[in-house]
Amino acid sequence: MIDQNSLPFDFKIIELKTSDQVCKAIKDMTVRGAGAIGVAAAYAMAIATNEVKNEAELKQKYNQIASTRPTAVNLIHGLNEVFAKALESSKAALVAADQFANDDETQCKNIALHGETLIPDEANIMTHCNAGWLAFTDWGSALAPIYKAVENGKKVTVFVSETRPRLQGARLTAWELYQQGIEHRIITDNAAAWIMGNQKVDLIITGADRIALNGDTANKIGTLDKAIAANYYNIPFYIAAPLTTFDKECQTGKEIVIENRSHLEITHFEGQTKEKTTEQIMISNPESMALNPAFDVTPNTLISQYITPTGLLPACNIISLKNIYSQS
Amino acid sequence: MIDQNSLPFDFKIIELKTSDQVCKAIKDMTVRGAGAIGVAAAYAMAIATNEVKNEAELKQKYNQIASTRPTAVNLIHGLNEVFAKALESSKAALVAADQFANDDETQCKNIALHGETLIPDEANIMTHCNAGWLAFTDWGSALAPIYKAVENGKKVTVFVSETRPRLQGARLTAWELYQQGIEHRIITDNAAAWIMGNQKVDLIITGADRIALNGDTANKIGTLDKAIAANYYNIPFYIAAPLTTFDKECQTGKEIVIENRSHLEITHFEGQTKEKTTEQIMISNPESMALNPAFDVTPNTLISQYITPTGLLPACNIISLKNIYSQS
Repeated sequence: MIDQNSLPFDFKIIELKTSDQVCKAIKDMTVRGAGAIGVAAAYAMAIATNEVKNEAELKQKYNQIASTRPTAVNLIHGLNEVFAKALESSKAALVAADQFANDDETQCKNIALHGETLIPDEANIMTHCNAGWLAFTDWGSALAPIYKAVENGKKVTVFVSETRPRLQGARLTAWELYQQGIEHRIITDNAAAWIMGNQKVDLIITGADRIALNGDTANKIGTLDKAIAANYYNIPFYIAAPLTTFDKECQTGKEIVIENRSHLEITHFEGQTKEKTTEQIMISNPESMALNPAFDVTPNTLISQYITPTGLLPACNIISLKNIYSQS
Repeated sequence: MIDQNSLPFDFKIIELKTSDQVCKAIKDMTVRGAGAIGVAAAYAMAIATNEVKNEAELKQKYNQIASTRPTAVNLIHGLNEVFAKALESSKAALVAADQFANDDETQCKNIALHGETLIPDEANIMTHCNAGWLAFTDWGSALAPIYKAVENGKKVTVFVSETRPRLQGARLTAWELYQQGIEHRIITDNAAAWIMGNQKVDLIITGADRIALNGDTANKIGTLDKAIAANYYNIPFYIAAPLTTFDKECQTGKEIVIENRSHLEITHFEGQTKEKTTEQIMISNPESMALNPAFDVTPNTLISQYITPTGLLPACNIISLKNIYSQS
């Protein structure tokens, strides 16, 4: 897998050989992004079939992998797909993991096709966090329609909100867009409303970590702020997600567990010095504590449409959503 | 003055002897905060009376100081107060600067008294940027009511939004609140909406850099995002400011010049290493550019009340605002 913590300064492919290594990589965000986490969990489960002696131990592995990160439901989907086959054989588990990874890519390609139709020929698009090809097997969710639009000759500028505390926007989305040669500007998260009100922002697309039956959507902290501001300025706000992000066990956003991460992610910072070494620095008052919810839940009422592999869904259309769930 | 760029890691008092030194300190944010900038500009003008040979040169100095930062109107107020006297004598200029600094403190004390009445006995309060005693001669604007409430035995917890890109919240407000022994938690700017919706936030108070005749308010970038979210959640949103922040030359927010600062403030970060040295690190994709508006304008419709030295003003009450202007 790509070591996402080394980006944008180093592009490193790392090879993980044990399920414990994959668990650690998910926890410390070496691999992150809803789709990529799901695929990593699927392969971790496949690897685990060679590590365990019996079904009880396999179930233990399942629980260990499931607990690495609580918010993205793709992780559980990937895990379940492979676990069902893991009881048969190691080979069947690996085939299931491959299948899950390929499905992820196919679904993202379809998200690209449907989402692209929402983008005008000249468009300023805002996105948050990273929901590009780094976050999936390929293509991505939120960025997939943008890649398709550019492929089709549309002129796109992307406002990339930096996405504190881990800066997936400034580090990963900016890096991806640069690789793709797409015009973009990094903005601080708190400049989003001002940019919406003063630059022509045509639409906003973000990914999702879990979508409840009623359409409430958990995604990276700061998605909610942008959805509220978009609503205030009447700018369409789209959520792009594969079927694995829809959680039919979850009635509304209230049931979604929000991961609280270490306050050190806010009080300390890692980056590159002039000498190209990586340094961690403290950036806030040393005696102060921080509160670090990693995700928030955007209510369905603030979401214009969901961009899914099977098409566009108008917001709060429970019948369409149920259709999705019957396929997921 | 206090070297605010060294905080929270070092508390340094620096002595500036020339108006050029003060101009540099304002530009590089060694001194920042609407009130403190105004006072610094007043003293820069007073110092300048000893540096110039004639009225033309004095006027030149006036322009130089006025151009250091464009958004906070306090700077122009401080400058004007002293310039009028500078034509008389150096001594008169210095007396005027002292008077301006003392007025700043008195006005902030009165903001504390009026604002305190808005705070319940137990309160969770959110603030943005730093509008405490660091930003003024003493007391501050947004934090003054909080200091008074705590002095009166009220139990207050403050959510401090870190305020990217310069982190005045995490560095300065957190430091100030720690000095005062007031409970607080730093949050990322983009967690504000989620905290509003999920923790009991009773009210939000921020300072201001310029308030137009119709009540539109320029303040640190990210104020607007919070005002929109507060509006969405029906949480009172207050602006606290001395009379010097009200600009009677300015009809609406549309006329306010927003300072765009270097994109390096977003792409690079300064902090303290484990070895207690200061290091600057690059934190985003090296080839990407950033957009860095330093302020935004919150429309009067999103502001619940203005906390002023002469009392509380209901929002959009132009008659009351005109009263303020007749005093400013």
